[in-house]
Amino acid sequence: MSMTSEVRGGIEAERGETSETRRATVAALEAMLDRPLPVLDHGFVRVVDYMGDDSAIVAAARVSYGRGTRRRSEDAGLIRYLMRHWHTTPFEMCVIKFHVKLPIFVARQWIRHRMASVNEYSARYSILDREFYLPAPEHLAAQSPTNRQGRTQVLGEAEAAFVLATLQADAERSHAHYLEMLNDPGEAGTHDATRLGLARELARMNLTLNTYTQWYWKADLHNLFHFLALRADSHAQYEIRAYAERMLEIVAAWVPLAYQAFLDYRLNAATLSAPMLAVLRRMLAGEAVTEKESGLSKREFGELMAVLGKGS
Amino acid sequence: MSMTSEVRGGIEAERGETSETRRATVAALEAMLDRPLPVLDHGFVRVVDYMGDDSAIVAAARVSYGRGTRRRSEDAGLIRYLMRHWHTTPFEMCVIKFHVKLPIFVARQWIRHRMASVNEYSARYSILDREFYLPAPEHLAAQSPTNRQGRTQVLGEAEAAFVLATLQADAERSHAHYLEMLNDPGEAGTHDATRLGLARELARMNLTLNTYTQWYWKADLHNLFHFLALRADSHAQYEIRAYAERMLEIVAAWVPLAYQAFLDYRLNAATLSAPMLAVLRRMLAGEAVTEKESGLSKREFGELMAVLGKGS
Amino acid sequence: MSMTSEVRGGIEAERGETSETRRATVAALEAMLDRPLPVLDHGFVRVVDYMGDDSAIVAAARVSYGRGTRRRSEDAGLIRYLMRHWHTTPFEMCVIKFHVKLPIFVARQWIRHRMASVNEYSARYSILDREFYLPAPEHLAAQSPTNRQGRTQVLGEAEAAFVLATLQADAERSHAHYLEMLNDPGEAGTHDATRLGLARELARMNLTLNTYTQWYWKADLHNLFHFLALRADSHAQYEIRAYAERMLEIVAAWVPLAYQAFLDYRLNAATLSAPMLAVLRRMLAGEAVTEKESGLSKREFGELMAVLGKGS
Amino acid sequence: MSMTSEVRGGIEAERGETSETRRATVAALEAMLDRPLPVLDHGFVRVVDYMGDDSAIVAAARVSYGRGTRRRSEDAGLIRYLMRHWHTTPFEMCVIKFHVKLPIFVARQWIRHRMASVNEYSARYSILDREFYLPAPEHLAAQSPTNRQGRTQVLGEAEAAFVLATLQADAERSHAHYLEMLNDPGEAGTHDATRLGLARELARMNLTLNTYTQWYWKADLHNLFHFLALRADSHAQYEIRAYAERMLEIVAAWVPLAYQAFLDYRLNAATLSAPMLAVLRRMLAGEAVTEKESGLSKREFGELMAVLGKGS
Repeated sequence: MSMTSEVRGGIEAERGETSETRRATVAALEAMLDRPLPVLDHGFVRVVDYMGDDSAIVAAARVSYGRGTRRRSEDAGLIRYLMRHWHTTPFEMCVIKFHVKLPIFVARQWIRHRMASVNEYSARYSILDREFYLPAPEHLAAQSPTNRQGRTQVLGEAEAAFVLATLQADAERSHAHYLEMLNDPGEAGTHDATRLGLARELARMNLTLNTYTQWYWKADLHNLFHFLALRADSHAQYEIRAYAERMLEIVAAWVPLAYQAFLDYRLNAATLSAPMLAVLRRMLAGEAVTEKESGLSKREFGELMAVLGKGS
Repeated sequence: MSMTSEVRGGIEAERGETSETRRATVAALEAMLDRPLPVLDHGFVRVVDYMGDDSAIVAAARVSYGRGTRRRSEDAGLIRYLMRHWHTTPFEMCVIKFHVKLPIFVARQWIRHRMASVNEYSARYSILDREFYLPAPEHLAAQSPTNRQGRTQVLGEAEAAFVLATLQADAERSHAHYLEMLNDPGEAGTHDATRLGLARELARMNLTLNTYTQWYWKADLHNLFHFLALRADSHAQYEIRAYAERMLEIVAAWVPLAYQAFLDYRLNAATLSAPMLAVLRRMLAGEAVTEKESGLSKREFGELMAVLGKGS
Repeated sequence: MSMTSEVRGGIEAERGETSETRRATVAALEAMLDRPLPVLDHGFVRVVDYMGDDSAIVAAARVSYGRGTRRRSEDAGLIRYLMRHWHTTPFEMCVIKFHVKLPIFVARQWIRHRMASVNEYSARYSILDREFYLPAPEHLAAQSPTNRQGRTQVLGEAEAAFVLATLQADAERSHAHYLEMLNDPGEAGTHDATRLGLARELARMNLTLNTYTQWYWKADLHNLFHFLALRADSHAQYEIRAYAERMLEIVAAWVPLAYQAFLDYRLNAATLSAPMLAVLRRMLAGEAVTEKESGLSKREFGELMAVLGKGS
Repeated sequence: MSMTSEVRGGIEAERGETSETRRATVAALEAMLDRPLPVLDHGFVRVVDYMGDDSAIVAAARVSYGRGTRRRSEDAGLIRYLMRHWHTTPFEMCVIKFHVKLPIFVARQWIRHRMASVNEYSARYSILDREFYLPAPEHLAAQSPTNRQGRTQVLGEAEAAFVLATLQADAERSHAHYLEMLNDPGEAGTHDATRLGLARELARMNLTLNTYTQWYWKADLHNLFHFLALRADSHAQYEIRAYAERMLEIVAAWVPLAYQAFLDYRLNAATLSAPMLAVLRRMLAGEAVTEKESGLSKREFGELMAVLGKGS
């Protein structure tokens, strides 16, 4: 039985029916529950459970900051105010739990976000499926000689073919050897009764980093926004950004007011340093400030111009 | 408008109706939602929202530790196994949010638990009600000369009367002066238009520590158990223990299997040190070990005897 | 023996001498060690211990982001780059431990910062000194009718005198009753042998919120910067800001490069939302955008103008 | 230049000399600073920096729990008391920073401990060395059919040879292809100027999980003890336990009193559940309780007997 069907089997059995609840409920998110949204070639993001909605953020804020009025239009204003002024605790009052299938090298980036709860499928106890991430040719970026993060140029056809063939062959060979070293008695066709079989916790070390794993990942909305601000950013590696973008769609359905505030005040906002602000004021006063006259470093001046939509 | 009615007003408006949900739902906890359970003389604990149930713990554990069977009897065994072996992450997959009204000196102990989210009613922005905690006479413990935490002896009638009268008079006077310094224009009867009124953020410093405050407090089940293990313990101060005991009732309704495992493996369990275990083995071999022969300190020997139910 | 001398006594006994170390050492911070820097009327901040320096940030960053060169000028650039792009983990590699004496109502704001370690002087076990915070007259702000956080106007002489007399009388009376209820045998002059004395954990509830407490507070530099960004901000309450400003002086001595980057990219920086940026671009193109034409809320337009140094 | 020499190069340049400090200093740990202690075939643990000592724990505890005496013998008793009663915050006042070289599959277990700070060598920006973990033959455990964690039986000679040859060949081939896909211009001998070279952030996915990585890892003593309690335990996977054991040696040198308390009250202690305690009391009363009569599950009864040193 494959990892995916095994993990999902249990969940579906439990979540098939509906119940009455007095809790805050979001119809648009209910419609997404338990449905895996595909990411990359074999991955997915799936909402397993959630707590709270836009109103829960407002209710928590009103405890802290005193009573306000109750109209929906003012909810939006309050949520935008909280986001703008980094009053983050009301957003912690909403929680979401995802089931994610993702390549191990993406999981290694993702796990760096510590303010979350994780239960990962363990290759100490279970056998990982023979599924690997192979990038689509348009995502086979060349190493940029200058900007070390960007994927400015894509490999040509021949080089791409070589890379994909290599990634596939190495992943498959490593996984085949993994199974051979495991020598699992459950694999009737290939089991060799004359060998003991290597412990799962050791055999897994032969797998390549594009092998898929799975986990449950739970975070509150404040920490999820922090994750998304970093991982839905254009500087994030494409593969983790693909997950972040799916999660943004989910957040938009779940807490539409908070989502819009997040876009405006975080994801699409820009922080200007004190020296940048000084330059900006000179510009607004009519001065044509050059990089040299700005007092900023070349890199910082370029960042400011980009924010202001001026050349590059 | 009082703090309590103000905070509750907003909540009730939102939570009056029921919805259909595909999420895990616990009927026994639904019945408790939004109902304040009284604690101390003016306090309460109220469940505002929750996520997950016993099955959610099991599902998360099965992701991590591989597939098991699906029968209810085995769920209990798995949850007990997780609790016994400190596999705590599956318990993090359940979350609960409380609305609590509590005296400030209790809030100061409570807030030491950092792995939680809090939105407290802010006396920077709002005015605190004239409500103070006054202990029932049977809780007016004398300072113990030896054990600094216990409340072994209760004050006599005359001393209790003096203490209660003092606590009440000082709290009321401080609150009356608080209002007088605030000189809030909203208090038509007492407002003195010739004075400005002190800022709320300053006037609050005149209040006594038994004044009631309120907050939203959200924690996952693992961290809630940690809180309860310390605060429902017999060494905890009575006033916070009163809250912990109410929360235990709530947990019993919410996740009955995890609750029983918590009682057996945490709250009513005992940790024996390596030196204690050495003594215990000698006792089981028939030796009548005295404190002197035990090699334990007097205090530790006493703790061991207490665990073993042997005198004191 | 007073709380302060008691706590300090132990520390000075241990820290009087110097040792040789191979660890990163900062001479300017060594000179501050163990010296209480006064804050408010009776409070202080004192550096007890620290780990790391600017170079430790750089070393950690170079592990993560690859090798760079070693010149001091490039260290500053790298630290500024980390700060600007929210690469926060290298700052976590520096740690500082403070001993702080502060009023309880300030402690209640401070403790909301959860990513820190705290050991507070406990009134369950010890007796709090008779020391209260009384604001200087120039800090006796009136409640602002519009902006609920600001201290725009100060109380007049007569009202200030009334407030200070009230604060002092209530604090002193509450503390005197606290001692009377405690009836501590150690207080030979006042001990009444016919009474038991109320438990310390209960008697403390009679104290007012301006009573001084003390704690050890340890945080890493990333979380300290987060604290300072919020608490050294002009919107923070004056009393906690007074502590934050002392701590800024300490940080300036400890990690001067990180300190300057913090000022430029956090404390004195401004985040412009996506709608603000759209308005800004129109202004730079020569358009004289009014609030009405901006599409921003009145409050947000005002914030933008303030950032740009334009009227308000 | 190899990853190891690159990372160490910078450190040694900075840490070669000694300074005077007024901070708590531990001679035995100073002697270990900057010296990599070997672990596994190519790994190491190295202390980079630290803050605090046994006295710092005592000083923090005395702030919280009131003044005690100052004798060394009483320090040990106080530290043991704190450990026994889970008064954990004083241990947070000590901090240590390690530089660790470890296989990626071990890093994946390690990173699950969230209450720590990490800066890992990034294969997005740098190229990973051709170094893999290959277990010593005596650690090539067979998969246990019953206890899924234990390594009860070791592979025979022929199977071990097959496994090691497979692990080595796959790791080397994957790494060689990694370099070939990278086509790094810095590798003069092999660089093919007709190809662009795949981005580092993508090429790394071809590496196997036994490839070595490196990181800085900083934790406070409380969280380090939590890590060690789980990872120095006999149920932990051998490979991470090897690191934990090295770290135990370091802790013994650093805070000898806390170390001994940790051994006695955590690592070598046992927690007995309420049902276990009931059985134990019957045994102490002279009853020969069988598994059947115990009311415990078979597994729990076995665990109790093991703790009591009775057969298995």
